[in-house]
Amino acid sequence: MNRPPVLLRTLTDLRANTASWHSEGLTVGMIPTMGALHDGHLALVEEARRRVDRVVATIFVNPTQFGPKEDFTAYPRTENSDVAKLATLGVEAVFAPNAAEMYPPGHATTISLAGPALGLETDYRPHFFAGVATVVAKLLLGGFPDIAMFGEKDYQQLLVVRQMVKDLRLPTEIVALPTVREADGLALSSRNAYLSPDERRTAPKLAAALEATAAAIRSGGDVAHHLRQGFNALEAAGFRPDYLELRNAETLAQPAAVADQPLRLLAAAWLGRTRLIDNIAV
Amino acid sequence: MNRPPVLLRTLTDLRANTASWHSEGLTVGMIPTMGALHDGHLALVEEARRRVDRVVATIFVNPTQFGPKEDFTAYPRTENSDVAKLATLGVEAVFAPNAAEMYPPGHATTISLAGPALGLETDYRPHFFAGVATVVAKLLLGGFPDIAMFGEKDYQQLLVVRQMVKDLRLPTEIVALPTVREADGLALSSRNAYLSPDERRTAPKLAAALEATAAAIRSGGDVAHHLRQGFNALEAAGFRPDYLELRNAETLAQPAAVADQPLRLLAAAWLGRTRLIDNIAV
Repeated sequence: MNRPPVLLRTLTDLRANTASWHSEGLTVGMIPTMGALHDGHLALVEEARRRVDRVVATIFVNPTQFGPKEDFTAYPRTENSDVAKLATLGVEAVFAPNAAEMYPPGHATTISLAGPALGLETDYRPHFFAGVATVVAKLLLGGFPDIAMFGEKDYQQLLVVRQMVKDLRLPTEIVALPTVREADGLALSSRNAYLSPDERRTAPKLAAALEATAAAIRSGGDVAHHLRQGFNALEAAGFRPDYLELRNAETLAQPAAVADQPLRLLAAAWLGRTRLIDNIAV
Repeated sequence: MNRPPVLLRTLTDLRANTASWHSEGLTVGMIPTMGALHDGHLALVEEARRRVDRVVATIFVNPTQFGPKEDFTAYPRTENSDVAKLATLGVEAVFAPNAAEMYPPGHATTISLAGPALGLETDYRPHFFAGVATVVAKLLLGGFPDIAMFGEKDYQQLLVVRQMVKDLRLPTEIVALPTVREADGLALSSRNAYLSPDERRTAPKLAAALEATAAAIRSGGDVAHHLRQGFNALEAAGFRPDYLELRNAETLAQPAAVADQPLRLLAAAWLGRTRLIDNIAV
């Protein structure tokens, strides 16, 4: 039986907790989340548990990364069951602030990125990465963890966070883990809870289309043709795709040629009123 | 005779130096500058000298805070004499990176502010405060000084830096000192070096107009009228004013009423090809 995690509500308490651990010579890992925890999040917690002495998970549905017509209000909020799951994994602290703690009146600072933040998600969610970069910076600066864990499911977000940490020399190592999937291939996401039973049956076809397109690209031939085929397959399956794109896996730049570079295939597609994203290595 | 300061060229060396001081329990103060040091800068160094155990001055003409038509190329660069002045004051370290160290290829992160960064300078130098906030954050995160010194001469910049440090909870106290002036009232500025002898004789009339306008506002009556008179006085003296404005001294918001709040009078005006700024408490 693990001790329940201490529940922190303020950045001041977050910093005091981690500073106290650091003063004892203990290493600290942070898992930033928006709650509604699934096994993808828990894999991040377990890996942090293996790597550091003290683990703090953060739960904050960050308003600044949602557009005005997006699902901020509908986003699932399940703090009690989230904390129970984190307790089971022996997490020492949960930082769950409210919006006024993170953005008090007069808050005026935004961190935005070019580079990996350009294109893909940005074409459809123009304010998303400024919201993410700002809140992640505030969390990392709030606790100065030695490591922070992110999933590859949000691949562009991962690269944006890595670039920000590098540019600002934040003293935290960003650790990424592969996407956790259901048995049928669907990438775990808190937004999967929005899917109707019918949509849930269709949803794995996003991962399947990525796999088929990646296999076709690997086998050679015209990349643009393969991407068009994949896009058409998504439409035929009932998705409304925002994009299906092949990018350099480290910079997200458009690859001039397919040879000699790590590549990533990334997609975003609507299924009814739910927007799913996924990506795989090529 | 003081030991000459150690000259640091990389953020890695800056952090190693300050971390080593902190590990010995010593406090660290930083004075961020663009070089071309004058007595205003040196007053900041001397005050830091009194407050902390180790002082690091930074010298970096930050390209991102200059607009395309501004004086980045012409800005005075006098590193050797700057370092000699800092040596005289017993500064332990000078951080003088080149642009590639601060903005390596692929650098993608910008920190921008609303709040105190809106209006005044922003109306004429739209990218200025994003450049300032980003470079100051990089310097503070590069060295994690306990205090950092700024002059009130760049009053809006001071408030922008304070707001950013507050919003991001950077673990550095911002310490401000009053503007240092020539005997005739002209605020010290590295850009005063641009003035012709004729312009130099006119330049103190900027501070004089601020003083006269502040006195008029204090004596009562219509603020807008007093501001118009001050603006006209600047034009009559040969300036081309960008603005002369009365603002709340803490937020830079437009004051709805003059009573019951700290106020600041701020001005920017061109004299020939030189843009001067100044401000005073009301």
